[in-house]
Amino acid sequence: MHLPTPRALIKNVLPASLVSALSAQFGERFSTAQAVREHHGRDESSYDPLPPDGVIFVRSTEEVVAAVKLCRAHAVPIIPYGSGTSLEGHVLAVQGGITIDLSQMNQMVALHAEDLTATVQAGLTRKQLNLAIKDSGLFFPIDPGADASLGGMAATRASGTNAVRYGTMRENTLALTVVTADGSVIKTGTRAKKSSAGYDLTRLFVGSEGTLGIITEVTVKLYPRPEATSAAVCSFPSIADAVNCVIQIIQIGIPVARVELLDAHGVKAINAYDKLSLPETTLLLFEFHGSEHGVREQAELAQAIATEHRAVGFEWATRPEERTELWAARHNAYFAILQLRPGCKGISTDCCVPISRLADCILETKADCEANAIIHSIIGHVGDGNFHVLMLIDPSDPVDVAKAEAVNARMVARAIAMDGTCTGEHGVGLHKIDFLVQEHGEAAIAMMRTLKHALDPENLMNPGKILVW
Amino acid sequence: MHLPTPRALIKNVLPASLVSALSAQFGERFSTAQAVREHHGRDESSYDPLPPDGVIFVRSTEEVVAAVKLCRAHAVPIIPYGSGTSLEGHVLAVQGGITIDLSQMNQMVALHAEDLTATVQAGLTRKQLNLAIKDSGLFFPIDPGADASLGGMAATRASGTNAVRYGTMRENTLALTVVTADGSVIKTGTRAKKSSAGYDLTRLFVGSEGTLGIITEVTVKLYPRPEATSAAVCSFPSIADAVNCVIQIIQIGIPVARVELLDAHGVKAINAYDKLSLPETTLLLFEFHGSEHGVREQAELAQAIATEHRAVGFEWATRPEERTELWAARHNAYFAILQLRPGCKGISTDCCVPISRLADCILETKADCEANAIIHSIIGHVGDGNFHVLMLIDPSDPVDVAKAEAVNARMVARAIAMDGTCTGEHGVGLHKIDFLVQEHGEAAIAMMRTLKHALDPENLMNPGKILVW
Repeated sequence: MHLPTPRALIKNVLPASLVSALSAQFGERFSTAQAVREHHGRDESSYDPLPPDGVIFVRSTEEVVAAVKLCRAHAVPIIPYGSGTSLEGHVLAVQGGITIDLSQMNQMVALHAEDLTATVQAGLTRKQLNLAIKDSGLFFPIDPGADASLGGMAATRASGTNAVRYGTMRENTLALTVVTADGSVIKTGTRAKKSSAGYDLTRLFVGSEGTLGIITEVTVKLYPRPEATSAAVCSFPSIADAVNCVIQIIQIGIPVARVELLDAHGVKAINAYDKLSLPETTLLLFEFHGSEHGVREQAELAQAIATEHRAVGFEWATRPEERTELWAARHNAYFAILQLRPGCKGISTDCCVPISRLADCILETKADCEANAIIHSIIGHVGDGNFHVLMLIDPSDPVDVAKAEAVNARMVARAIAMDGTCTGEHGVGLHKIDFLVQEHGEAAIAMMRTLKHALDPENLMNPGKILVW
Repeated sequence: MHLPTPRALIKNVLPASLVSALSAQFGERFSTAQAVREHHGRDESSYDPLPPDGVIFVRSTEEVVAAVKLCRAHAVPIIPYGSGTSLEGHVLAVQGGITIDLSQMNQMVALHAEDLTATVQAGLTRKQLNLAIKDSGLFFPIDPGADASLGGMAATRASGTNAVRYGTMRENTLALTVVTADGSVIKTGTRAKKSSAGYDLTRLFVGSEGTLGIITEVTVKLYPRPEATSAAVCSFPSIADAVNCVIQIIQIGIPVARVELLDAHGVKAINAYDKLSLPETTLLLFEFHGSEHGVREQAELAQAIATEHRAVGFEWATRPEERTELWAARHNAYFAILQLRPGCKGISTDCCVPISRLADCILETKADCEANAIIHSIIGHVGDGNFHVLMLIDPSDPVDVAKAEAVNARMVARAIAMDGTCTGEHGVGLHKIDFLVQEHGEAAIAMMRTLKHALDPENLMNPGKILVW
């Protein structure tokens, strides 16, 4: 797919003095090999790769400092890279430069089970974290689907299925260690659960997509594993019924841990992919966390509300392996849906609206896909008013691409008109820069630009993302 | 009490051209009367008043814009004022200037009950908000004790008794309307529950204490009023027992809505003030929210844990009037404690630590008060690891003041050494500027200063607070 912002595309040649300095400092952990560069020039968006000019595999905050100082001395852009699972072109080297790969920084720094906190290196993934704490009785709930790194999740303000109950990276990040554009190291917070001590640097970096500095450590909240968990699925005759069911569940305050919507296309796809036999109509997947009795109470209430909204086929999955199968199917949905049009690429987009507007926003967006004959699926973290549209396109066909981009633009305009946001959890990256202006207005964008200019005056930190310089 | 930062104290004379321009614009709503200025030069801290040179009672965002532009044109400082209930000297006019009183901006802008959000003018107080929404089945949980304005609560990142369950202003503010230093109006967010759309301007202004701009509207989350509520008190032989009980309740994940500690001095004070007969030893006050069965389950579990920690005299208050009496006593504690030393002034300070360190932090701080013969009380939002020390001093006695300040400094150093924060909810104001440096380190403070310089290059927005320019 072609970049919508070619104005950001600048071709660089890496200065020989920088190459030799990086080689001297990092040895074989600095690479300019074609394969390594190409691997780091792509994410899970449908953009064509834009490789950096070199990649450093760092092992410590001090090494990130050294890398930043060397790149800065040569005015070369710096792009942080965690697991490459971002969805809006966040890691593409639109202005060339050096990618700092943090995946080898994957150690637990400190687990404080008694305080329900963990401090980890930024390259540790969420699954690695949950594995590392599995004997503590605690878990880390944020689950964006991909096994993303904690640093990347903080940088994109990620969330996912559990956010309706546990919040997003915004609410669950207590502190960050950040290497700034001038190579200083700051700690943005403490392990105190709350603080009124000055400007909220933690939240400034959460969601900053590497454009203000490089996150090297993350302190997150953990939660006691619930005494009881149950999951359920049920089917609805229409999307409106399913969404209205969710709206009512949220409005009366049932503390549902997950509530996910799959449209009929999505259900059909996971049936084929995961060899399931779910009714091929709108599906809701629920998960409830709490005490034995509390979970039963929540679930009964949810089922009663679902039934009022014409749900059928309520099925319970209380055994862990049944639940795992169900959630694996949900997590595979992206890949399953891609099979609906062999050889295609998926454009995945998301938005988030106040929950009372969710049914309208989904239905109008679906009608738009259908009017444009775009094979698609809508999947939603509907408890938060957040949904995804996966559109299957032929990336070599400009008409196909243009149609999908137009649907996306109209979805964003619709969400913004409903007092919602152009992205609930994917981030801005390259793809939503213009929408950001629509959403926030010129004065707020000017303030964001002022912040960027103040903290990265030479525009070296992941340039070309979030804002046009 | 004398200012600890006289370096910020600058004497101004209001330019005559500004006085006439403000009079022309605001008529009688611009005042330079001595009584009005003195009223606006004090908060609930123990500082001697520092009146502004004039006060404007604004009625709209547009009027704030006009006021900011006029003050800026004359290089005169601007101080926002909500209800004057801050605790660290936030509203004192250390460099003179004009106070913008927002208390007449106290209207509901939009209640979206179906989305669990309300947008209010910044001068609306939390009690006014709860009154305005009382027929909706919803409530706004954040309760810092004082009937503070929503704008002030956002500006100081306030929290209070319910934060352990519902979070602070950080988590509950969805969007702000802000008048910036150059008189622009920005909206920092939307009503979407989550967003990854660019830098988090909302969180940048939450906790910025008026130093980056003036908050004129606040969009907050609301919550369904719980089906059932119960409150309880019990007494412990020691502070350590009580705190250890709370630690265990939090660690196993009981979703307690409030858990407050009062030390023996505090209990004695409220017994006298509210004509109660509670045992004069460490007290915990609990509140539980949920379904009928859920509340009973939480409460029984909490009682069992309390009993393990030698609690006695568990008493339930399930009737609304009993609960109201109990929480009124808690909220009156500040005034009740002041009566322990007639004619004194109270220095109220707070800190917040990871919960595993809470007992140590409280006990060492209490021992320090006792070693210095300071009449005091410790009251805590202990579920968050947050506590307050109220020290009763003779403000005219420099020895008394110095002793209290030294206890405060050692408490903060202790909290920071425990990976906690110098203030959990009061904010920095004038009083914790030096501690902020201790907590964050020079590099992070340099970044905060960069932000302040970028967004308020002429240092006109509540100058002298949070940071030394």
